[in-house]
Amino acid sequence: MSEWLTSLQTDTPQEGFELAITLARKGVAYTQPAAEVRDMLRPEYASNADSLTLASQVVAIHFQTVAQANNYWK
Amino acid sequence: MSEWLTSLQTDTPQEGFELAITLARKGVAYTQPAAEVRDMLRPEYASNADSLTLASQVVAIHFQTVAQANNYWK
Amino acid sequence: MSEWLTSLQTDTPQEGFELAITLARKGVAYTQPAAEVRDMLRPEYASNADSLTLASQVVAIHFQTVAQANNYWK
Amino acid sequence: MSEWLTSLQTDTPQEGFELAITLARKGVAYTQPAAEVRDMLRPEYASNADSLTLASQVVAIHFQTVAQANNYWK
Amino acid sequence: MSEWLTSLQTDTPQEGFELAITLARKGVAYTQPAAEVRDMLRPEYASNADSLTLASQVVAIHFQTVAQANNYWK
Amino acid sequence: MSEWLTSLQTDTPQEGFELAITLARKGVAYTQPAAEVRDMLRPEYASNADSLTLASQVVAIHFQTVAQANNYWK
Repeated sequence: MSEWLTSLQTDTPQEGFELAITLARKGVAYTQPAAEVRDMLRPEYASNADSLTLASQVVAIHFQTVAQANNYWK
Repeated sequence: MSEWLTSLQTDTPQEGFELAITLARKGVAYTQPAAEVRDMLRPEYASNADSLTLASQVVAIHFQTVAQANNYWK
Repeated sequence: MSEWLTSLQTDTPQEGFELAITLARKGVAYTQPAAEVRDMLRPEYASNADSLTLASQVVAIHFQTVAQANNYWK
Repeated sequence: MSEWLTSLQTDTPQEGFELAITLARKGVAYTQPAAEVRDMLRPEYASNADSLTLASQVVAIHFQTVAQANNYWK
Repeated sequence: MSEWLTSLQTDTPQEGFELAITLARKGVAYTQPAAEVRDMLRPEYASNADSLTLASQVVAIHFQTVAQANNYWK
Repeated sequence: MSEWLTSLQTDTPQEGFELAITLARKGVAYTQPAAEVRDMLRPEYASNADSLTLASQVVAIHFQTVAQANNYWK
């Protein structure tokens, strides 16, 4: 896969949160590399509450990592 | 997305807990940006015990991050 | 919501565990504020093994936070 | 509930693991205090692979806490 | 249960990963002590993708603990 | 199993993320050693959104470990 992650440092907590979202999606993309399959899955999954909560959980785990990497932007 | 997260610092543990709830909801909103879809999902999911527990779990993970960012409000 | 969390410090590990239980329940209550709905859900969920395990998991995550806040009561 | 947890310190890693199991079970017992209900649920759940994995996961989370409390028994 | 865990220290990361697998299995064995029941469950569960992912998750949590106990084998 | 993990150190965050993916897959391979069974499971699971999210979650947990081992590549 081409270069997509060069640093965990971000300027603000919000950028850190958005990096966590990228990390969560990349975790999916490495398992299902076909973008058209991922796009096909999105409508169903984006309208299922538990699927959304599960996705939010992965973001939360990555946000822990990113926040620590940035010393919580203190 | 417009600016919504500028700091992980809060004055009290309870405000930190409420920030964790915001973070959990934002994790959903980035995946399903349509507020009307999220609102439509809420009644079913808010009356399902396992869905509520899953949501509470995401809050718990974010609360770990926020609590650490605030040195546990010691 | 009125004030319910002023400190993560507890006198004993057991009180810390009980605070973790409170935190897990509050995570639910912020999503489903109606106590009568939560009470209605309890019988089914309290007699389902996987639901109980899931609830115990949320407690475990919060207990990590509370234990660290108290330096493991060492 | 009567006193059941006075310390997270254990003499050995194995005792720490067994404390983690106790903590996982207590997380269930606070939600379902009736021992006869918990006993009734056990046969089904103890013969379901995913239920057992879920239970093992809660133990793993608590073991993190106990291991850290004991400085990994180094 | 007889002695099975005397230390979290391992010589290499791979041995640490294999200890994490042992810990995940022991978490199951304490809940379902009958080896013949666990053996009976294995074929179905070892050919179900989500069951395997769940099992891998428990290993991941334990590996965090073991890696930290070994200061990441640095 | 032959040697496959000699270090948690990587040169870049992206290599660390890819190591996390390897660790997640190895967690599966220790439970289901038959590569042909794992290959058989892949099509179904790689086209199920929740299965992909679950897999991404395991990667997230391992990435926490790898990132910490590398001091967040700071």
